[in-house]
Amino acid sequence: MRKDITDEIKQIVGTAYVLEGFEDKYCYIYDASAIDAGKNGTPSLVVFPGSAEEVSCLLKLANQYNFPVIPRGAGTNVSGGTVSHSDAVILVLKRMDRILEIDERNMMAEVEVGVITARLQDEVEKRGLFYPPDPASRSFSTMGGNVAENAGGPRGAKYGVTRNYVLSLEVVLPTGEIIRTGAKTMKDVAGYDLTGLMIGSEGTLGVVTKVTVKLLPLPQAKKTMLVVFDDLGKASEAVAQVFIAGVIPATMELLDNIYIRAIEDYVHLGLPVDAEAVLLIEVDGDEIALGPQIESIKQICTRQGATSVRVASNAKEADELWVARRSAFAALARVKPTIIGEDCTVKRDKIPQMVRKIRAIAEKYNVIIAVLGHAGDGNLHATLLADERDKDEMARIEGAIDEILTSTLEVGGTLTGEHGIGRVKRKFLPLQLGPGGMKAMKAIKLALDPNNILNPGLGFGD
Amino acid sequence: MRKDITDEIKQIVGTAYVLEGFEDKYCYIYDASAIDAGKNGTPSLVVFPGSAEEVSCLLKLANQYNFPVIPRGAGTNVSGGTVSHSDAVILVLKRMDRILEIDERNMMAEVEVGVITARLQDEVEKRGLFYPPDPASRSFSTMGGNVAENAGGPRGAKYGVTRNYVLSLEVVLPTGEIIRTGAKTMKDVAGYDLTGLMIGSEGTLGVVTKVTVKLLPLPQAKKTMLVVFDDLGKASEAVAQVFIAGVIPATMELLDNIYIRAIEDYVHLGLPVDAEAVLLIEVDGDEIALGPQIESIKQICTRQGATSVRVASNAKEADELWVARRSAFAALARVKPTIIGEDCTVKRDKIPQMVRKIRAIAEKYNVIIAVLGHAGDGNLHATLLADERDKDEMARIEGAIDEILTSTLEVGGTLTGEHGIGRVKRKFLPLQLGPGGMKAMKAIKLALDPNNILNPGLGFGD
Repeated sequence: MRKDITDEIKQIVGTAYVLEGFEDKYCYIYDASAIDAGKNGTPSLVVFPGSAEEVSCLLKLANQYNFPVIPRGAGTNVSGGTVSHSDAVILVLKRMDRILEIDERNMMAEVEVGVITARLQDEVEKRGLFYPPDPASRSFSTMGGNVAENAGGPRGAKYGVTRNYVLSLEVVLPTGEIIRTGAKTMKDVAGYDLTGLMIGSEGTLGVVTKVTVKLLPLPQAKKTMLVVFDDLGKASEAVAQVFIAGVIPATMELLDNIYIRAIEDYVHLGLPVDAEAVLLIEVDGDEIALGPQIESIKQICTRQGATSVRVASNAKEADELWVARRSAFAALARVKPTIIGEDCTVKRDKIPQMVRKIRAIAEKYNVIIAVLGHAGDGNLHATLLADERDKDEMARIEGAIDEILTSTLEVGGTLTGEHGIGRVKRKFLPLQLGPGGMKAMKAIKLALDPNNILNPGLGFGD
Repeated sequence: MRKDITDEIKQIVGTAYVLEGFEDKYCYIYDASAIDAGKNGTPSLVVFPGSAEEVSCLLKLANQYNFPVIPRGAGTNVSGGTVSHSDAVILVLKRMDRILEIDERNMMAEVEVGVITARLQDEVEKRGLFYPPDPASRSFSTMGGNVAENAGGPRGAKYGVTRNYVLSLEVVLPTGEIIRTGAKTMKDVAGYDLTGLMIGSEGTLGVVTKVTVKLLPLPQAKKTMLVVFDDLGKASEAVAQVFIAGVIPATMELLDNIYIRAIEDYVHLGLPVDAEAVLLIEVDGDEIALGPQIESIKQICTRQGATSVRVASNAKEADELWVARRSAFAALARVKPTIIGEDCTVKRDKIPQMVRKIRAIAEKYNVIIAVLGHAGDGNLHATLLADERDKDEMARIEGAIDEILTSTLEVGGTLTGEHGIGRVKRKFLPLQLGPGGMKAMKAIKLALDPNNILNPGLGFGD
């Protein structure tokens, strides 16, 4: 970066908030994807703006001198959305971390973009309110990152994803204008849905600086159960039948045999290591309704051939059941050091077909692929286990991922349910969207960001 | 329209599907707004395409010869979204009216754009499923119209609006490309949210031809109650307290004294004509949970000073209570012949302040304004009563509407919760969105519709 531009940037945010040294900058080039973040060089600067106004000045400068800007929260995305390159300025948004308002009467909250998701959740839960989106990263990820990736989580089938809760955003457009999208109301149809357009746009259409979300009342109670199946098809059929019976569980986590074995090996819960699938199911809502719901699920699972059904009778027992799910990734890390989580998403009743395809792909490429799924919404986390030092294995992993993605599209699914496209899946996006869809995306990107300043390289506009 | 172009259009859709005669065309110039539809002349042609491919050919022709195209469903929008003008071709989409699939296992349905909303609802309800959005026009309005306006309805506070149910669209872009937005999955974040961008875009960004929606299980049961208050502030406080208690009713309809008197005068239900407000409340869900919910609401309303609480003990009694709500507009039509429904929307706890403002405006302009609200989501239908033959009164009505809209923005609300901007509110949109928001809208419109072919005149791109 030219010294005079660096000086201008320092004037905007203050010298203390600009990193220039190689080691300092190196801490901000990665994300949680498996992309080799160092191979594209270190960014020219890492900058920590403290306000929308500062972001606006920085973006105007970027247009003037034509340098790319990569907005970044905690870098927890797994899609390569915030991997940097050598000429970029990294915009770390974590300084803007105030919870601005929790409006209990109207059940809304407004936060700055750098607020950690779990912190918002904890604060609203203290007041009897509930912000449902629960990405696995919620203890570290920022609300801005959640907006950028339209983060989901296990509760998606019942409660939806980030998109379903964001009412309004403060956004700095790529050309520097600070706008307010949407309205702080429960309904709004005044003009194009710019809020929705920003959500999931992965930092390419604007830099979000404030987020207003709607909240729900905290459910009165919840109940948890663990159901074991000797056949994945039966487990999937049980999932379908539960919904058909009119019960919508808050979570319905499916773990396959590879997960079960790895978890049992690690935490010794007495899981049946020969089982093909377990379902970890949680229902929540009015306390009086939960008993009948659990009973209904139990009957359905038994009818579908469950080999065991364990209902937690109190919070402590529920917590023990959740140990299996919570230790899942750590358990796999003991098997292989490199874990790559996919998130192909299909219709609920395509789960067995998709899992069969994943197994065939694992065999074909001679790699280990475990499957964990948010079964209620068909969001399957095919989890590839490898050792990144083994170049041959990594090549096979890459082949397997490619085939998982094309197979997902073949069964009518989407490349990504909740992780985003990023730099990881960009080459597949045209297969899903077609030339017309790609053209529309590029036109929108060019319209809002004519100099392609914001997070270039995702294939959305370039 | 030039004869050679008319001939080309006839070749695309077939001669039988092109209207040229004045009287025939005149039937398609209006919508449900109070705009004088005839004053801008009759459109050049009214065309009934039968497929996305035909729409595509028509739009390519429109770009070639530069004529505006106004897509239209049943014309039930109240915002002037489909009022025609003299050089336009009206695209009536009602021929495309097949329900293509009701996928019970995955709880999704796909329809062509001309399907009447209530028909879809009836068909899915037969299968124990539920499509919640319930605009007042649902017995006539098309799914395409619902998408174009992001239609809501009384059930919005609990169930959301059209946007919350649409998973995927088939859309013909203004330049003729047929694209598929989103995915037929419960989660999807592959690229920009073009589905969301189309929803509420009022026919300016594309012609929707197919709509895929997610469905819910039909609630097991519902219960209805009517609560009377002598003070609107108390009624509003009761609404707030019900939510704070963690109960989310399916509907919470607020009727003010003018409505109460008009309804009682019309259908003689024994409503207390001196009451300042009634709340018609319905809860739905698991049967076992409804008794306690009703009891909780009853206690809260009583504590807030309700003068009477009537709980329907069966479906017949519930239906009687709903008579009040259903006859509301007919009752007002007996007072004055011209009824204009506004839909300014504010935070729930701003309802009393907004109603006071509306009353002051009614007094200032010497006009009658009744208020009906979807109180749960702050969506207030200020209903202006007039006689359109009385020019002086209509001028005062216009002044009153202008002031209602600016007052709504003053209290942090939105110009429109569920009706859309259309030609009616276009002059106010910049006040809500600001120059940056307007610039972004115009840039997007120009990017997708460079010749401004689709539904020009709404102020979104012109």
